[in-house]
Amino acid sequence: MKIPKQNLRIPGPAPCPPDVLEAMSGAMINHRGPEFKALIHSATERLKRVFMTANDLYILTASGTGALEASLVNTLAPGDKVLAAVTGSFGKRYADMAETLGAEVRRLEFEWGTAADPLAVRTALEGDPGVKAVLVTHNETSTGVTNDLEAISAVVKGEFNKLLLVDAISSLGCVPLPVDEWRCDVVATASQKGFLTPPGLSFISFGPAAWEARQSVGVRGFYFDLATAQTYLERGQTPFTPNLPLFYALDLSLDRLLAQGQEETYARHAYFGEMVRDGVKALGLSLLADEATASNTVTAVRVPDGVDGKALTEALRTEHGVVVAGGLGPLEGRIFRIGHMGAVTEAEITGLMDALRVALPAVGFKAAARP
Amino acid sequence: MKIPKQNLRIPGPAPCPPDVLEAMSGAMINHRGPEFKALIHSATERLKRVFMTANDLYILTASGTGALEASLVNTLAPGDKVLAAVTGSFGKRYADMAETLGAEVRRLEFEWGTAADPLAVRTALEGDPGVKAVLVTHNETSTGVTNDLEAISAVVKGEFNKLLLVDAISSLGCVPLPVDEWRCDVVATASQKGFLTPPGLSFISFGPAAWEARQSVGVRGFYFDLATAQTYLERGQTPFTPNLPLFYALDLSLDRLLAQGQEETYARHAYFGEMVRDGVKALGLSLLADEATASNTVTAVRVPDGVDGKALTEALRTEHGVVVAGGLGPLEGRIFRIGHMGAVTEAEITGLMDALRVALPAVGFKAAARP
Repeated sequence: MKIPKQNLRIPGPAPCPPDVLEAMSGAMINHRGPEFKALIHSATERLKRVFMTANDLYILTASGTGALEASLVNTLAPGDKVLAAVTGSFGKRYADMAETLGAEVRRLEFEWGTAADPLAVRTALEGDPGVKAVLVTHNETSTGVTNDLEAISAVVKGEFNKLLLVDAISSLGCVPLPVDEWRCDVVATASQKGFLTPPGLSFISFGPAAWEARQSVGVRGFYFDLATAQTYLERGQTPFTPNLPLFYALDLSLDRLLAQGQEETYARHAYFGEMVRDGVKALGLSLLADEATASNTVTAVRVPDGVDGKALTEALRTEHGVVVAGGLGPLEGRIFRIGHMGAVTEAEITGLMDALRVALPAVGFKAAARP
Repeated sequence: MKIPKQNLRIPGPAPCPPDVLEAMSGAMINHRGPEFKALIHSATERLKRVFMTANDLYILTASGTGALEASLVNTLAPGDKVLAAVTGSFGKRYADMAETLGAEVRRLEFEWGTAADPLAVRTALEGDPGVKAVLVTHNETSTGVTNDLEAISAVVKGEFNKLLLVDAISSLGCVPLPVDEWRCDVVATASQKGFLTPPGLSFISFGPAAWEARQSVGVRGFYFDLATAQTYLERGQTPFTPNLPLFYALDLSLDRLLAQGQEETYARHAYFGEMVRDGVKALGLSLLADEATASNTVTAVRVPDGVDGKALTEALRTEHGVVVAGGLGPLEGRIFRIGHMGAVTEAEITGLMDALRVALPAVGFKAAARP
């Protein structure tokens, strides 16, 4: 197939550095041999540094949703009561998944585009002592909102000591998430957002309280069973044939991320988040999220009145080679979303703004007069 | 990491053609955009040709075991009775998996190194009308035996009309498996054996009787739910972010496999299977499996008396750059296994035999005098 040259500004998979993509061309090796053993041990230890955790950590050959399924089947038994903070499409999906897997899910719904309120979490937990675990989406990719996980954890762990399960797919590696300091029992993320690596691997940290929960749950899945993953990791292996090319890519990406330093990475994302927000506002567009909670990895922009959202994204793609994402669920047609995570550059963001400046009037946008 | 240059003769991941590995360096694209839609539709249709099936077929971002889990969670409810033909480590694992996922599993055990006897399957089904599904490992990678799936299907489908679930991970694409002609309801395989592609994708065909079974089963998993996969495939997508680089690689591999032709591929594997068997016998070694049932993708060789199997595989690896696999479970130390699937060449097999000729005496092997 011919891959088009484009400015890929969807909220993941994020574009990858060319040398990371080339690393995948390495020859196959024995996944039960010494080279892979060195690779998985080194990658796991470096991932723990990015997670800022001393918890166990596993690399799964699956998309991020696979790691989310692992977070649930390894901690919850059918009928267990769960509180899910839902701030958008991915929070809803995490809750749906828990329900599908047999949990009794209480949904704490927040208006899409706003952040989860820690006080509402407190009230919900006060009212329902039977809750075993709380599900939180750290960065809600569908609305461009970063939830205040630190404050939520202060309630969930500090006040109620419930299990805290975190979807960090579009946050970890991009914005601060010190897993141990914030007492997150289980944190799931994936390769294709902050990790400069293509999709196909996911990562999950699993702490002592999660292991304790697992004791009483027993074995509920096979592919996502973390006790098996632990047994194999001890001998430098995965239970099932791992995605070797992505391990090669991750190996290089982790070196780069750690050499750059976490603080520098967070600062980069904050810089680009602000650049995007300022850019779209300067064009006369408005943001879905309040700036205080706006995400530094993905920005949701309201489709202006009189503009067809689909026509706008199509014009950007076909006439300017810029690919952005539409809205999901109830936000379909009402917003478009710009990804700015991973190896994004200033030229790419400028290019996107230039494209918007031309495409918007062409699809009927009339900016209000500005001073 | 530095990848050693070696003759990788494990039974998968099989070495991949260099241009297939290079195809993975393609830039990321929108997995919800038109390029991916064209890619997944084309890859799915071409996979159906390799499977020789008109059944539905899905590409999962997971190792082969993920597709096996999908074969079970989409057809079996907890408590459903299953007959598992166990001829080795992977047959045992498929049975274990069904048990873990709640099925009542009756194991029909055959001596490891022999094939499943269709008559024994008939007797078992006669004796237990409550059986809903039969699990068969087409090619038992742990013993180098190809089970007679056609004859087993004649019993399972032709006489009893039970669901037939097939693990074809180390057979499909290498040896004949006409899915529809042999009436296999569900067939699971993976990218890293016959498909000339690295590990990380798996493929599953799912026929009408399997869909009928699914109706009564409901939704038992999230990541491996094939009804969701179907909904997304209709719009040219996967439910969760797919492994794009492996889709690029598969795209190229499928072109190559179909251009070569299935019959030619089977003939190649038969040729190399015989070459390996003849080669090890000429060295004075003996095969685990009877030649009538010996696999054309992997050969299990008995470790000769007086030889330490681990010392032999270590000598091959460290002194000759040849990597073979050891035995699994009860066969550990008693056999070693040679993979000869996918893009194997004559020079690689000759190189392996040359290495064995030197390494064997060095680890204490004394060949019996031959005429």
